[in-house]
Amino acid sequence: MWKCTNCHHVELSTDKPGFCPVCGAEAEKLVPHELAGIKGARTLRNLKNGLVAESQAHLRNLAFAIKAEQEGYSQVARLFRAVAEAEAVHAFNHLRLLGGVSSTQENLESAFESENLASSTYPQFIKDANEEDNTGIATVFSYSRDVERGHAKLYKKALAHMMAENDTEYYVCQVCGYVSDGVLPDECPICGAPKEKFRRVV
Amino acid sequence: MWKCTNCHHVELSTDKPGFCPVCGAEAEKLVPHELAGIKGARTLRNLKNGLVAESQAHLRNLAFAIKAEQEGYSQVARLFRAVAEAEAVHAFNHLRLLGGVSSTQENLESAFESENLASSTYPQFIKDANEEDNTGIATVFSYSRDVERGHAKLYKKALAHMMAENDTEYYVCQVCGYVSDGVLPDECPICGAPKEKFRRVV
Repeated sequence: MWKCTNCHHVELSTDKPGFCPVCGAEAEKLVPHELAGIKGARTLRNLKNGLVAESQAHLRNLAFAIKAEQEGYSQVARLFRAVAEAEAVHAFNHLRLLGGVSSTQENLESAFESENLASSTYPQFIKDANEEDNTGIATVFSYSRDVERGHAKLYKKALAHMMAENDTEYYVCQVCGYVSDGVLPDECPICGAPKEKFRRVV
Repeated sequence: MWKCTNCHHVELSTDKPGFCPVCGAEAEKLVPHELAGIKGARTLRNLKNGLVAESQAHLRNLAFAIKAEQEGYSQVARLFRAVAEAEAVHAFNHLRLLGGVSSTQENLESAFESENLASSTYPQFIKDANEEDNTGIATVFSYSRDVERGHAKLYKKALAHMMAENDTEYYVCQVCGYVSDGVLPDECPICGAPKEKFRRVV
């Protein structure tokens, strides 16, 4: 396992990568990293696979809850939300055991780098979608690319002063994921959704 | 792509699997399945990879938010929650484009089968962890195994009558993910956590 001294990313592979897959730092920035308390390759692999599976189960249940509300099954929706929360607890346990949660300062740096990685991944997705004649999907991908850039800016701002003195609310567009900092926009600047599509995060 | 006629799981592989990876149904239960509007293998792969990445980014940001609250950075915690919600929007978009959300009846069946799969996966994880002398991690895995069984029971109950007449609240243990149906327990029957560790889901 390897830890990037530039962005704090923990790479779980046994072999040393040629560069940090998150921030792109050269190999010399990667230092050996052992997780206290994890012995053996199988346990490590199971923790990683479990994290992927539990994260997806969490999201899937949340999506099912939204669908159940739309179909008028509000009690079933509540069950889906409860189980989604349970799967999140499992995913958190795996993530912590894998050493994926550091100090808030380090987490912000790591989150900032991940957003940059995400926004640099989507251009290829958009190109592929257009070349394969999926223009609608290309549009969805382009929303994500633009939104991830905005997230990176918000993290950069937070890193500057850890936001101790602020008390800002955020509004998240439920169509494209745009995060507005303190202001409920009349319409989403990324996808054009009306303000009714925004949800306040407290 | 293949759809299981037993549990409604959509398998994204090009080659037909020998059996359904979710419910274990034999190959003859798997029928060809095309997603309306997705053309080409690269777009499909990108949607799948994007779903994995966005799901994990969502969970990671939620875990960072918990850590930030613990360290007294409540505004940073709010930013992490806002971005987590944005990543969930992206994951939902990918999931819907991949045809992963059906009717509530079908979603319940699919969720039930997934819980059974999860609870049958953990015994091997536990065995591996014990063999590699990770007894603490084996305990965490055993909590998850027991909890997933409970989720399956809750889904089965919901499938019986779609819960139209119920108005039940759920309480979720934040240590092991146990879901209590209508009652806040004095302590968690799975991991022994006190009732203060439970969160009500509305």
